[in-house]
Amino acid sequence: MLFGALEAGGTKMVCAIGDENGTILDQISIPTLTPEETMPLIIDYLKGKGIAALGVACFGPVDLDRKSETYGYITSTPKLAWLHYDIVGTLQKALNVPIGFDTDVNGSALGEATWGSTKGVENSIYITIGTGVGVGVIIGGKPYHGMMHPEGGHIFLSRHPSDMEFESKCPYHANCMEGLAAGPAIEKRWGKKGIELVDRKEVWELEAFYIGQALCNYIVTLSPQRIVLGGGVMGQTQLFPLVREEVRKQLNNYIQTKEMENLDTYIVPAGCGGDQGIKGCIKLAMNELGI
Amino acid sequence: MLFGALEAGGTKMVCAIGDENGTILDQISIPTLTPEETMPLIIDYLKGKGIAALGVACFGPVDLDRKSETYGYITSTPKLAWLHYDIVGTLQKALNVPIGFDTDVNGSALGEATWGSTKGVENSIYITIGTGVGVGVIIGGKPYHGMMHPEGGHIFLSRHPSDMEFESKCPYHANCMEGLAAGPAIEKRWGKKGIELVDRKEVWELEAFYIGQALCNYIVTLSPQRIVLGGGVMGQTQLFPLVREEVRKQLNNYIQTKEMENLDTYIVPAGCGGDQGIKGCIKLAMNELGI
Repeated sequence: MLFGALEAGGTKMVCAIGDENGTILDQISIPTLTPEETMPLIIDYLKGKGIAALGVACFGPVDLDRKSETYGYITSTPKLAWLHYDIVGTLQKALNVPIGFDTDVNGSALGEATWGSTKGVENSIYITIGTGVGVGVIIGGKPYHGMMHPEGGHIFLSRHPSDMEFESKCPYHANCMEGLAAGPAIEKRWGKKGIELVDRKEVWELEAFYIGQALCNYIVTLSPQRIVLGGGVMGQTQLFPLVREEVRKQLNNYIQTKEMENLDTYIVPAGCGGDQGIKGCIKLAMNELGI
Repeated sequence: MLFGALEAGGTKMVCAIGDENGTILDQISIPTLTPEETMPLIIDYLKGKGIAALGVACFGPVDLDRKSETYGYITSTPKLAWLHYDIVGTLQKALNVPIGFDTDVNGSALGEATWGSTKGVENSIYITIGTGVGVGVIIGGKPYHGMMHPEGGHIFLSRHPSDMEFESKCPYHANCMEGLAAGPAIEKRWGKKGIELVDRKEVWELEAFYIGQALCNYIVTLSPQRIVLGGGVMGQTQLFPLVREEVRKQLNNYIQTKEMENLDTYIVPAGCGGDQGIKGCIKLAMNELGI
């Protein structure tokens, strides 16, 4: 059985065809311009390939409430060409197959939970730290939606004493994770991109302090059985041991579980080698057929 | 059909008999001394009353993992007489009925979700702010457990600029909700119990700042469709409008949903008039029979 996948990002649209094992058989990438320019190229690619369903993981915010009149829309995005755009409806009309739809980061969380580092784990989270911070939440094996999809990147944090004066990069929040610890915050604070700061120990210690603190907050609220860290900033793999140490230090033995005794297997990198997003789309398509 | 209920608290054990409508038909309260002194009184009360199942909501931490060898135990409690005590096993042996078991605050969350302010709401949270802070989480209509039960009372917060020097009352964490905003923190900070500070505006403004911030963090992680606030501190009902205003101000329009447009119906007091805990036990018993 073949499934279509669309990982809809703010700069590129990755389209793929895959099978029920999560194997990607073919893949293309299309720049994200306007819907008028970009959508026909996506539809051309997906049409006539015999897909049984399509999965779409999309930059947001998006409306995931199936009872809503604007279900399947991109809503209040700052990418104005896509504001209030009915992406699911447009694809539905053109392709006439069942469509699974979720946020980009829930898609990646689902890819990891199906074929990656959280395979077989009922309740897990996937955090991407890059130009922004996103948190995908899997509960009972499925992407979780409550009032809406979680927006854990905007969790409020306590400042490091050495970082009291830094002005948050988030236009909404003076002390949120994204504003203090995403890629643009690193660049603003230290005057260079993370990639040019590899040897500056203090950069990664402060970064680990914030990531570790956010993880503690996800642990006491969502109580995940495993945590996957991905995204550009986590490409600095020296962060992993530092983050684990911060979680250990900051939780201070308050949470006592077997998972906490082995943080090396609790806080882990993605297992899909960068394909967690597109593979998650395949699984979104499969879920739509109950597979 | 009759159900037994045991709300096991650190100072008293409330035992009750109720029916499938959540009506409490009879109730007693027993002081929490040692298991040897207290458990026989509980068993005497519940025995021979024809209950079909028993629900127990217990002070913690407790082991809720049915696959664990210590399922149904109170684990690392500071109440040493109850340390590693097999409360479910003891009741099971004496009463020989199915027993539903959860944390005290998950019990209250379930009581509210079944017969209180979150009736009919799929995903909700119940927060008790008293001598400690507890967060009960309902997902898909059931108390949520991941790695373990959530411990949201220990979420880390950003300090108010006027409160940088206060020493947290939590022995584990320098900046957690419980350490900064539970009853004992109020008393330590202002030198008097909350009940003696009713007219001090600045007390409740600071308290609302922390409660509101914690709520923002629960909103971006757990995305509840409604939030119930209970516990002794929330007896100061002047807090409700202040907390709603802090949530509005601190989230700063980042989360746009219909719930956010009407915080009066989103952040609400308990609807069971103080009986949410014991009623939750009735529902825990019913759940055990699939009712």
